[in-house]
Amino acid sequence: MKSATVFVPASIGNVGPGFDVLGLAIDGIGDRVSIELRESPRDSVTVSGRDAEQVPTDATRNVAAVAARAFLDVAKYEGGAAIHVEKGLALSGGMGGSAASSVGGAAAASFALFDELRVDDVIRAALAGEALVSGRHLDNILPQTIGGLALTRSVDPLDYVALPVRESWWAALVTPAVRVETRSARSILSMQIERAVFIEQMANVAAMVHAFATGDGALLRRALDDRYAEPARKTLIPHFDDVKRAALDAGSIGCSISGSGPTVFAIAENEAAARRCGDAMARAFGSIASTTHCGPIAREGARRV
Amino acid sequence: MKSATVFVPASIGNVGPGFDVLGLAIDGIGDRVSIELRESPRDSVTVSGRDAEQVPTDATRNVAAVAARAFLDVAKYEGGAAIHVEKGLALSGGMGGSAASSVGGAAAASFALFDELRVDDVIRAALAGEALVSGRHLDNILPQTIGGLALTRSVDPLDYVALPVRESWWAALVTPAVRVETRSARSILSMQIERAVFIEQMANVAAMVHAFATGDGALLRRALDDRYAEPARKTLIPHFDDVKRAALDAGSIGCSISGSGPTVFAIAENEAAARRCGDAMARAFGSIASTTHCGPIAREGARRV
Repeated sequence: MKSATVFVPASIGNVGPGFDVLGLAIDGIGDRVSIELRESPRDSVTVSGRDAEQVPTDATRNVAAVAARAFLDVAKYEGGAAIHVEKGLALSGGMGGSAASSVGGAAAASFALFDELRVDDVIRAALAGEALVSGRHLDNILPQTIGGLALTRSVDPLDYVALPVRESWWAALVTPAVRVETRSARSILSMQIERAVFIEQMANVAAMVHAFATGDGALLRRALDDRYAEPARKTLIPHFDDVKRAALDAGSIGCSISGSGPTVFAIAENEAAARRCGDAMARAFGSIASTTHCGPIAREGARRV
Repeated sequence: MKSATVFVPASIGNVGPGFDVLGLAIDGIGDRVSIELRESPRDSVTVSGRDAEQVPTDATRNVAAVAARAFLDVAKYEGGAAIHVEKGLALSGGMGGSAASSVGGAAAASFALFDELRVDDVIRAALAGEALVSGRHLDNILPQTIGGLALTRSVDPLDYVALPVRESWWAALVTPAVRVETRSARSILSMQIERAVFIEQMANVAAMVHAFATGDGALLRRALDDRYAEPARKTLIPHFDDVKRAALDAGSIGCSISGSGPTVFAIAENEAAARRCGDAMARAFGSIASTTHCGPIAREGARRV
């Protein structure tokens, strides 16, 4: 029967000020999802890797299986699927861990059935998986599917833009050993935004689009300034101010919380600078243990391996 | 003694969703400001052209003279200036009428003293003029000084970006014979923004930056959708919904209120399309008289003539 294995990279949701709007795919770490189609209509799931013991193996509650099933249903495939998820990303780390499994399930189904990534169908099916755990947001799903810096203009109807990234910048992602649930990280945010914050945030997001397109690191460093989510969410991350200061002092061209945290990301001009930032950030977490990943911006999203 | 005359083009403040953040310079109509420096320290102003009878000729209350004086003071010029303002733009039309005079005063002083446009000093001096009538906003001053599509990231400290515009698009600007004061058009706006609007507006502004940079008219048409100011301010503009519909039906790639109104603008792919849009919009105003200007995006802002 047909089968496929895909790798889905990590992603920085929001990228600072771009709350629910921007996402950036980062290579070198991610989830690996395999699918094997079979005649029996039953779906099954196995899971290995990071946080595997916390991932449901009931196919109706596993995001990869739900996303794969959503894709297969749209394609009117009547058989079942055996899915294996090899988690590289933590579940609640803020690096798009659950979204990567969702995208992986849908993308693996797409490659198995059609030998290609049917991008919009994969995105819609991955949304069905994500809806199980964190609502209908594209900020990780989109960059993890299309790669690079991705802009969500609208979820329903689906409207997005692959934004240009001129330089081969890297990111350092440092995850402290504290747990922040996506749901509680959302509930801490206010539903009303003051006009001054609204205006500054729009300006910063617009400036970031230009900074990535032109490779203007000095502008990115000024514009990657989140006035909305970071002030609230940093209270959930011990030593955040010290960690951010350490990243900027080490030469980062932009540092904030990745997605809903607790991972803190720093953009840097190249691999060496990213490693310097990552080391400085890990030190600034003090007695709190942390894990660091450094990787380049992923030019490609979900890919067959 | 030294003298200079400058032309300052019209401007579309906000450009739809970019409230207080984006501005777009439009050529072919604007204010013309002349300055003649003299030894006597007294400043004087004369005014001709559109709405001239409503423009103060007291040098401490005339925006062009105040802006020129602010520039001259920074340059430590101790003499006086005789200024003439030839208004091409209406005072409260929503095409940057008062900002054009402010920029003109400062720019004329810059050319007269230094034979060049000292951009940041001109912007700061023009802000002093604008503060007399509508507060410290750059959304018209910036594009009128540097041309094209301009992004204000911060007023204090001054931080802005000249954004790339790939295509030679035109605009139709249709001004109905109703008066909307900038101050009342601001007071109608809420000081708190709902999160859903905040997110959509950020996404649209980001998408517009990309659409202008790449010439993607289809994306611009979707993204030029102002969820914040337009719903409130359109109540001050009779027949606004009909006028917008007429512009979009006539092929516009984006239509909204220019600045605080009452001018309605439509972006179009070329001169012929802009004229079609302008005619359709003027007809849609029905029995309300209007004036129409069609012009290309101004690649250059304030210039010596």
